[in-house]
Amino acid sequence: MKTLLLSMEDVQQVLSMRSVIDAVKEGYLAFTQGKVQQPDIVSLEVPECNGETDIKSCYNGLNRRISVKIASGFYNNGKTNTMPTMIGMIQLFDGETGALLCVMDGSLITGIRTGAAGAVSAEYLARKDAKTVCVIGGGGQARMQVYGLCEVRPIEKVQVFSPYPAELPAYREEVERTAGVPVQICDTLEAALEGADIVVSTTPAKHYLVPAKLISKGTHIIAVGADMAGKNEWDPKVFWGAKIVNDSIAQCVSRGETRNALLAGVITEGDIYAEIGELVAGGKPGRTSDEEITIFDTTGMAIQDNMTAVKVYELARERGLGTWFEFLKGEG
Amino acid sequence: MKTLLLSMEDVQQVLSMRSVIDAVKEGYLAFTQGKVQQPDIVSLEVPECNGETDIKSCYNGLNRRISVKIASGFYNNGKTNTMPTMIGMIQLFDGETGALLCVMDGSLITGIRTGAAGAVSAEYLARKDAKTVCVIGGGGQARMQVYGLCEVRPIEKVQVFSPYPAELPAYREEVERTAGVPVQICDTLEAALEGADIVVSTTPAKHYLVPAKLISKGTHIIAVGADMAGKNEWDPKVFWGAKIVNDSIAQCVSRGETRNALLAGVITEGDIYAEIGELVAGGKPGRTSDEEITIFDTTGMAIQDNMTAVKVYELARERGLGTWFEFLKGEG
Repeated sequence: MKTLLLSMEDVQQVLSMRSVIDAVKEGYLAFTQGKVQQPDIVSLEVPECNGETDIKSCYNGLNRRISVKIASGFYNNGKTNTMPTMIGMIQLFDGETGALLCVMDGSLITGIRTGAAGAVSAEYLARKDAKTVCVIGGGGQARMQVYGLCEVRPIEKVQVFSPYPAELPAYREEVERTAGVPVQICDTLEAALEGADIVVSTTPAKHYLVPAKLISKGTHIIAVGADMAGKNEWDPKVFWGAKIVNDSIAQCVSRGETRNALLAGVITEGDIYAEIGELVAGGKPGRTSDEEITIFDTTGMAIQDNMTAVKVYELARERGLGTWFEFLKGEG
Repeated sequence: MKTLLLSMEDVQQVLSMRSVIDAVKEGYLAFTQGKVQQPDIVSLEVPECNGETDIKSCYNGLNRRISVKIASGFYNNGKTNTMPTMIGMIQLFDGETGALLCVMDGSLITGIRTGAAGAVSAEYLARKDAKTVCVIGGGGQARMQVYGLCEVRPIEKVQVFSPYPAELPAYREEVERTAGVPVQICDTLEAALEGADIVVSTTPAKHYLVPAKLISKGTHIIAVGADMAGKNEWDPKVFWGAKIVNDSIAQCVSRGETRNALLAGVITEGDIYAEIGELVAGGKPGRTSDEEITIFDTTGMAIQDNMTAVKVYELARERGLGTWFEFLKGEG
């Protein structure tokens, strides 16, 4: 029993946004169909080093694979050393024998599967003719969300605003080169929201940035930033009367943007329209008019990592990438 | 940033019961002193394949290392394939940067650190002259507990009883060879308990095996088998009037043998004397008379894996063992 080791470079060679969107969609469906065991996220805090580590695990009955992602943010990295801030590792186990099939770098996978989540939501909830995207924030997810949206809607323009504007010239250069879409850097949030069909928020904000009154009818909102209690990018009032879709209701009410709207008393749990998997399954329709405001709250699910990592593992094996190692050497 | 990979063979070369006992003791102390963040155990069940996977993680402020152990039992293995039933992997991360320092086989570590736990308890709770050990069960832990006890007490004889007696000849041969102590195979539990100073239970029993009335004054009990709700090796009445020590009170009341005594109404939480770390710290004395019955309930703690894995990692580096792999190749 050998284990396949995949470096970031190996993973990058086989990852594509299009295939990850399909994988994530299949994962949402399996989750809704009750084929996924997904325990609560485990969080370890290392405040003395400005770090945190999350463990997201699941058993996916669809592919009989167990995945465990250990993802860290250490925010002193890059200052006192040359390490990246965000590091992730994924282990894949065979659900029939418990064998460790693969250990892979998970840093790229987290980024791309989160971008793919936004794209899946837009496929069901954004207007078919959505062409202008407002992006709030200028980091990794601000990029990935655009790359995902370009796969599912005829995006013609990105209007970006960031509380940290220094990051925006590099953002514009990279997104224009990668996605082939013009990026306009905006000095104010109002300017960035002007005429936007889709609004994506990707900041680590702890107090809301986006007032509800600035959101026009027909907008699709993708709320990415708030993924733990204490984070908040949106005026809770935007939830009032909107079609609210969660990746996982259990997670969103305990740690997503939905939690903030519940705490503010703007909505009750009964106002949550659906989990995204229900839209994929076809049991509930997505957008049904050009006027409604739709909100997709995503906190990130282990099943997204599972489906993406399994795809990476299979493609890497097909192409002969990676390095094999025998952990059980010496057994028996 | 390279990661050290250690196979079972590499791990075996540096593990010794003596050094693991010291590591586990230090870990218990750190836990009691509040230096350890240890989230709840995550459990994934794969009933259709007769398997289960547990994830035990912690951050240890003493050595600034995060450890994540993913340990599985797949009970069809060995029948339909050649895989071992129990498989474990441990990842060690640097608590200052989040870097993945080491991925190692964890199968041997679980066994030896659990044996070491029993030994630490005997050091504080068994009579100084304890020489006869009754072992219930004939599997891996039935061996490891004896190897641990031989390090801390002048053990002269092992009396073993198992609900599955077919495993006992191999048990006797291996324990006599490894520990140099004579092993007597007993046909009845009563015979195995005759004159025992220490009783170790290591079965997966779901209904109690050991009646309280068979336990003599002065006995030290090590309850290893019951580590999840539903497992039960001991008559709850044995807890009545005994000095009860837990590895982690939180874990033992929710999934250990202590849980069964609480549910039976034989004790209340206030009757639990101490966590083992409090004895190591010296705040509370261990055994104080030759007459008392002492019970150590161990469910297994992430901090034991952490301390043991860090020792293995350090020794392997010193001796130049293992294989290095660069997961972040391609970064930046």
